[in-house]
Order: sequence, then structure tokens, then C-alpha cells
Amino acid sequence: MGIGDNGRVTPTSATAEAVQALLRNAPQSEAQLEQLARDAQTLPIVELVYLVETRPDTEAAILFRVLHKDTALAVFESLPAPHQAELISGLRTRQVADIIGELDPDDRASLFDELPASVAERLMHGLDAGERAMTTTVLGYPRDSIGRYMSPEVLTLRPTWTVGKALAHVRTHAEEPETIYLLPVVDETRVLIGVLGLRRLLSADESLLVGDLAHEAIHAHATDDRENVTRRFFNAKLLAMPIVDSEGRLVGVLTVDDAVDILEQETTEDTARTAGSEPLPRAYLSTSILGIVRSRVVWLLVLAISAILTVQVLEIFEDRLDQVVVLALFIPLLTGTGGNTGNQAATTVTRALAVGEVRVRDLPRVVWRELRVGLTLGSVMGSLGFLVAGLVYGWAIGAVMGLTLLSICMMAAIVGGLMPLVAKKIGADPAVFSNPFISTFCDATGLIIYFTIATAVLGL
Amino acid sequence: MGIGDNGRVTPTSATAEAVQALLRNAPQSEAQLEQLARDAQTLPIVELVYLVETRPDTEAAILFRVLHKDTALAVFESLPAPHQAELISGLRTRQVADIIGELDPDDRASLFDELPASVAERLMHGLDAGERAMTTTVLGYPRDSIGRYMSPEVLTLRPTWTVGKALAHVRTHAEEPETIYLLPVVDETRVLIGVLGLRRLLSADESLLVGDLAHEAIHAHATDDRENVTRRFFNAKLLAMPIVDSEGRLVGVLTVDDAVDILEQETTEDTARTAGSEPLPRAYLSTSILGIVRSRVVWLLVLAISAILTVQVLEIFEDRLDQVVVLALFIPLLTGTGGNTGNQAATTVTRALAVGEVRVRDLPRVVWRELRVGLTLGSVMGSLGFLVAGLVYGWAIGAVMGLTLLSICMMAAIVGGLMPLVAKKIGADPAVFSNPFISTFCDATGLIIYFTIATAVLGL
Repeated sequence: MGIGDNGRVTPTSATAEAVQALLRNAPQSEAQLEQLARDAQTLPIVELVYLVETRPDTEAAILFRVLHKDTALAVFESLPAPHQAELISGLRTRQVADIIGELDPDDRASLFDELPASVAERLMHGLDAGERAMTTTVLGYPRDSIGRYMSPEVLTLRPTWTVGKALAHVRTHAEEPETIYLLPVVDETRVLIGVLGLRRLLSADESLLVGDLAHEAIHAHATDDRENVTRRFFNAKLLAMPIVDSEGRLVGVLTVDDAVDILEQETTEDTARTAGSEPLPRAYLSTSILGIVRSRVVWLLVLAISAILTVQVLEIFEDRLDQVVVLALFIPLLTGTGGNTGNQAATTVTRALAVGEVRVRDLPRVVWRELRVGLTLGSVMGSLGFLVAGLVYGWAIGAVMGLTLLSICMMAAIVGGLMPLVAKKIGADPAVFSNPFISTFCDATGLIIYFTIATAVLGL
Repeated sequence: MGIGDNGRVTPTSATAEAVQALLRNAPQSEAQLEQLARDAQTLPIVELVYLVETRPDTEAAILFRVLHKDTALAVFESLPAPHQAELISGLRTRQVADIIGELDPDDRASLFDELPASVAERLMHGLDAGERAMTTTVLGYPRDSIGRYMSPEVLTLRPTWTVGKALAHVRTHAEEPETIYLLPVVDETRVLIGVLGLRRLLSADESLLVGDLAHEAIHAHATDDRENVTRRFFNAKLLAMPIVDSEGRLVGVLTVDDAVDILEQETTEDTARTAGSEPLPRAYLSTSILGIVRSRVVWLLVLAISAILTVQVLEIFEDRLDQVVVLALFIPLLTGTGGNTGNQAATTVTRALAVGEVRVRDLPRVVWRELRVGLTLGSVMGSLGFLVAGLVYGWAIGAVMGLTLLSICMMAAIVGGLMPLVAKKIGADPAVFSNPFISTFCDATGLIIYFTIATAVLGL
């Protein structure tokens, strides 16, 4: 490192030149970015500042983005204000978003540290929804994390302010932020101390201190899963929720309209998955035919391939079918009833999981309940099956039908109740074991039950 | 009618006595209430006032409740304040709520006029959620109407107030109402003129007039369907929505937490119905086993009885089955695929209807789309079915499988897309033609297609 003619520090070390070379080649692969991050981290702050100031906007933004959080903050604070603005606009370019967005989410999380809250706030300032989505990629929040949905413009109060001063502040800035009805209270380093509702502020004595009125905030971390955060949001009947980074610094606020959007999207996803299809990327009538086909064909194939199991089960019992062809008549009715019972149970439990009424640790209770429900349903269906089939096809067939319906209802209710919990336990979406999947499973199992009982009762 | 010793008007006419007799017998049936309403309407205001003042609370409340809106208002305004309070507390008793609640909703709507807004407001004042549910019955709002969910405590502004006066008013009353973030502006007869957001009020010049700042209100009528109102609520990204009676008078406000509750209930209902069961009255783990059975058994029976159709279809083709028993092997796979395709289509269209992306008049477009989607899916499934079944069981069986899968996918996609729209068109819940119902329908139709094609191709 040496001092140049103009008295500024210029990078002369081999590392600084390696960093410059890497930047010039527009690093895109994970390996290149990792190398850049490693090299950059060994440079002194002053050299990093120089590089950020002198490289073109996109290169400066990429370099800045691979710095660790503390280093990034130090660099940012050393930059003169106009260069801070340039850096922010560089971070907002689509090129930078694309480079970061193309990485695997896990790699991205390990490579990119959080941005300092002050930088994040300025980066997100005044963006519309589309730009914001792009920019949250730069911030490194994973897909489906709440950081992607928060509004960065927040009106904050300081604990040392009087109610009078706080009210004047709110009245001056009322039109700017996304919401003024919940006011986060932060210290001088933006760490969230609490919140104060506008209603409380309005009715309080003007001489009281904000810090004395504020109460603990129900908040979330920017990387938290959007579904869990939204659930907590609505359970607590909030109008807004402060979002913080890993150090407890305020980075944004989730407002109720964004929370409702998330809820609606989750419902649409769950509904589609429950019926064994993927949610459509856009409105039904404006999705192309091929887009609709794509949302359905994979699951349809998977299910049809699973259903080959039913063909194989029936092949095993083909000679019994050949002997008593009347057994074939009841196949759709029995598999249908099994599927219906399984789906009823699965839907109830999936919804109970979604609204937080049931947790994974309730698995034994759910199984015990579904066993009794299945037994009761099976008794009703079995008795009717015995009577109706017995009257029409003789009591031997009646007995086969009665026993089979009893067994299938019990099996299906337990399987249907169990599946969503198993999915949740292994970290998958409970809707992954969708209703058609449960139907197919119950079809195959039900056929085995049917022919086993038929073989025994009819003495085949 | 004559003047009694104390100078008060006492009812002496035959009608007044008939009314008194009816009241004493605690009218409960629709006929009795109708008779009471007819008789009461012929009495002069002054006699009605006398009756309301002198009869016990419950009788007075029932009498008051059968009066037409204008008469009720005149009577109420003629009552001295303590008697007004007594009447209100009479209207709030469970006995009155039960009498009114036991009537058929349609009869109730034709028999009970709306209560005047001023009475409704006082009736609803200071109630918790449970009491409110009971009291909305007295108000006569039908089940599932938004009137049942609104909060009656509203902070209102007058158009002639200055911003300064309005702000002082809000600050004084900030802790009382359900929300202060949306402020309805009403005239002296409580007719809704517009709304003013607190944010706008806070940032406006203190000398401006409320009437000049207020803008047109997105509002709903108390008798409007809760689902439609909630949809409009969220589409407009509101925090609160004023609710008015048929004369445009403010009777309450729907807040965002109530709207979210409705949305959640509707989703739970739709989800349960889609799987062919009724929503549980309470949380899954705290519902009794019999309660769960009750939510499922009716649909399960209906579906099983419908599935007898599949037995009958198979009976028609029993001799073909006897000739070529291998045909039986594919029954579960074929009916399963038909059901899956139908459910995918039905779920997509039902959800699109629920979020307002598709309307009933789009029926031809939906059918045309599903025809092409079904054709595409059927071509994929059919080609694979032809190849796999052909290789294993010979090309004749392969041809049967291929053609059947193609036809079943087309039929099921169209049926699945059509059903929710037909349900909506005839005024039923689109989820009534639930997925199991569609499966059962597709099962029977699919079997006819299957054996017709098999008969033709195999020359049976």
C-alpha cells in the first residue's frame, strides 16, 4: 500500500489487485464470489473504501455486498454522503440483484451477511412493490421469509421524547410511512426497545415520556418464515409488526394488508396442493393452457404411477376375481369410501395444523381420536353395507362388505390423520401428502384388506 | 281509549286489550307474532308508549320489536330516558333473543323491520363478543350477514367541525371505540356522508373543515353477505369499513381483525366442504369424537349411496368382466385418475371463484379452457397408458387403456371445471359439489367410458 500523488491511499498490495481483477470480470459463480469475499475481508477498511469509491457502481455494489456486516457498516460510514447514495443505487440495479438471485438460497445465506440496518433502510426507501421484491434479494432474505414482505419505511420514536414531541413528529411525517398506527420505539443504534400505539399516544398526557408508555413489541426476525409470522400477527390481532435483524435492529414493519396478502397466497397454495396440483403463477383465466397443464401434469403422473400399485394388488388376487367376479363390482365403492374417509381426516388435521390448533407433538392424541372416529364411522358404514349387500347378493357377500367397510374406514381415518403430521415432522408442507396421494394409498391398502377378508369369509 | 284517574291515557279499545293478552301469553310462534305485529301497528303511538312503559321488560321488548321502523322510532323518542334504558335492557335479554332466534331466517326478515339506528347503537353499546352475537339476533340481521360481525361502537365526526375540534374529540375518546383509525363522518340523523382517515386528519391544517377533507366511504349494508363484504374489504386494503342500515344510517364499523376472522372461518368452511365434511364447531382436539363423526358421517353416507351407481354400472358390464377379467385390474387406476383430474380442475376454479378471479358468466371460457387442458393431460396420460399397458398386457389392452385415459381426463377436467360454476349459478356454495362428489361422479362416468371403449376395441 502506498500514498499516491493526490495524498490518497491507493491499493498496491497483491490482494487489492486480485480483488480488482475479480471485480472487473463480473463474478457470477459461487466460487468466484467466495474468492472475492475471502480476499476482500483481508483488506483494511481504508482500501475497501477506496475501491468502493473508485470502481463502477455495479462492481462497487458487489464488493460491498460480500463484506461481513461490521466491515460493511464501517465502510459505509466512512463514505462521503454522495458516494453513499451512489453505492445504494448500485445495490438497487437489476444486474446486482440477478447475480445474487441466481445463487442457491443456502449458498446465498452462507455467503452474504445481513446488511447493516441503516444501509438496508436507505436501500429500501421509496421503492414500489416490484422494486422492493428485487431489492430484498440483494438484502439476502430467503424466499418465503418475512423480510421479503415488510415495508422498510417506518416512523420511529425515541424513548426520551415527550408525548408532545412524539405527536408533533407523527403529525409532520404522517403521510410518508406505510403505517403510523403502530410506532416502534428504538434507541440511537436502531435497536428495537418497544412499541407505542398511536391511540395510546393520542390519549396520553403530553408531558409523559415515550419510554414510559411503550410496551414490549411482538416482533419477528426478517429471516423468519412468512407463514409462522403471519399466524402470530393475526393471533395477536395486530395492525402492524416490527421486523428486526439478527442484532435486534429495526429493518422494517409488516402491515396488515401485506399480512392478509400472505394469508391469501398461503391459502391458495394449500388449496391447490391439497388437490394435487401446484398453485398457478397468475389468475386462472390469464394463465396459458400449457401453464395450467404444467401445474397439474406432474402430480397426475406421480399419482397414476402410484396407482400402478393397485393394479399389482389386483393381479395378486386375479384368480379370486376370476372365481367370484361379483367381487369386482364393489371395487370403486370400497376404494371411494376409503379415499373419502382418509381425505376427511387429512383435511381436518391439515387445517388444524395450519391455524395452530394441533401440533406435531399431538400425534398420539390425533391417532387415538381418528381410531375412535374411524371405528364409529366404520360401524355405521359396515352395518349398512352388510344389510344392503346381504339383501341383494346374499349374506356371505354382505359379511365381506360389512367387515371390509369397517376395516377400511378405520385404516383410512388413521392414515389421513397421520399423514399431515408426518409431513410436518419431516419438515415438509403438510399438504404434500395431498388428498389424492392419501386416496391412492388407501386404494391399494383397501384392496388388500378387501381380498384378504373375501378370501377368508368365502373360503376361496 | 279513555283518560284514567291519573290523567294518563289507558288502552281500552278491543285491539289494545288483544295486544295485552297476546303479550301476556308470551308469543313464540310465527303466527302469534304476526298477529301481534298486525294488531300493534293499528294502535296510536301514545297507546304503544303506554304499553311499553307499563308491561314487564320482556313483554315490552317483544312488543317494541314487532313495530315498524318509523313507529318504533316514534315510540322510542316518546319514552322518558329511564324507560328507554329499561327497554334496551329488555331487548338484550336471552328470552327475547331466543324468541326471535327460533324463527326461520326468512320469516324473521319479513316480520322484523330494522331497528332505528339510534336504538341499535344503544342496544349494542358495551357488549362483549358473546352478548353481541345474541343481540344481533334481536336486531334481525340474518346469519352470515356482516351486521353480525360489526362493532357498534364508532367514533364519528361531523362535517361542520374543524380539524382542530375533530382532533380534540378523537383524543378525548381515543380509548373507547373499536377503532379510531377510520372516522366516519355523519350528519345529525346519523346518515353516513363519508370517511376521514386519522392519518389525513393528523396531517391536515387545524382550521380546515372535516366535511372538506372527508372522502366517499367504501361501505356495506348490515344485511350484506359477510363473505362478499370481506372480499371488498381486503381488495380495497381497508383498516375499517362503515356499516349502514337500509336508510344509509351508520350502525357500526367492521374492523380488520373481524374481517380476518371471517376470512379464516370461510377458509375453514371451504376446506372442510371441499373434502366432503362439515366444519367443526370448535377446535379439533376439543371436539368430541361424536362431534367429529357427525361432521363426516352424513357426507360419507351420501357419497357411498351415490357410489352404488358404480356398482350398477359394473353390473351392466358384468359379463364383459367375466370374459376378460384383466379389465378389472385397471378399475382403481382409471377411476383414481379421473377423480384426480376432476378435483384439480374443481379446486382451481373454486379458489378462482372465491378470490373473484372467475365469475359465473365466464362459464363458457372455463369449459373451453378445461377442454383443452383435459385434452392435453389426456394425451400425455393416454400415450403413457397405451405404451405401458400395451407392453405388459398386449396392444389391444394398451389401446383400451390409452383411449380410456384420454377420454376420462377430458371428461373429468370439464366436469370439475363446470361443477363449481353450476353450484354458484344456482345459488349454492361452490364447495357443495365437493371433491368427493366430483370423484364419485367421475368414477361412474369413467366406468361407462371404459367398458364402452373395451367392448368396441376388444369386440366383446
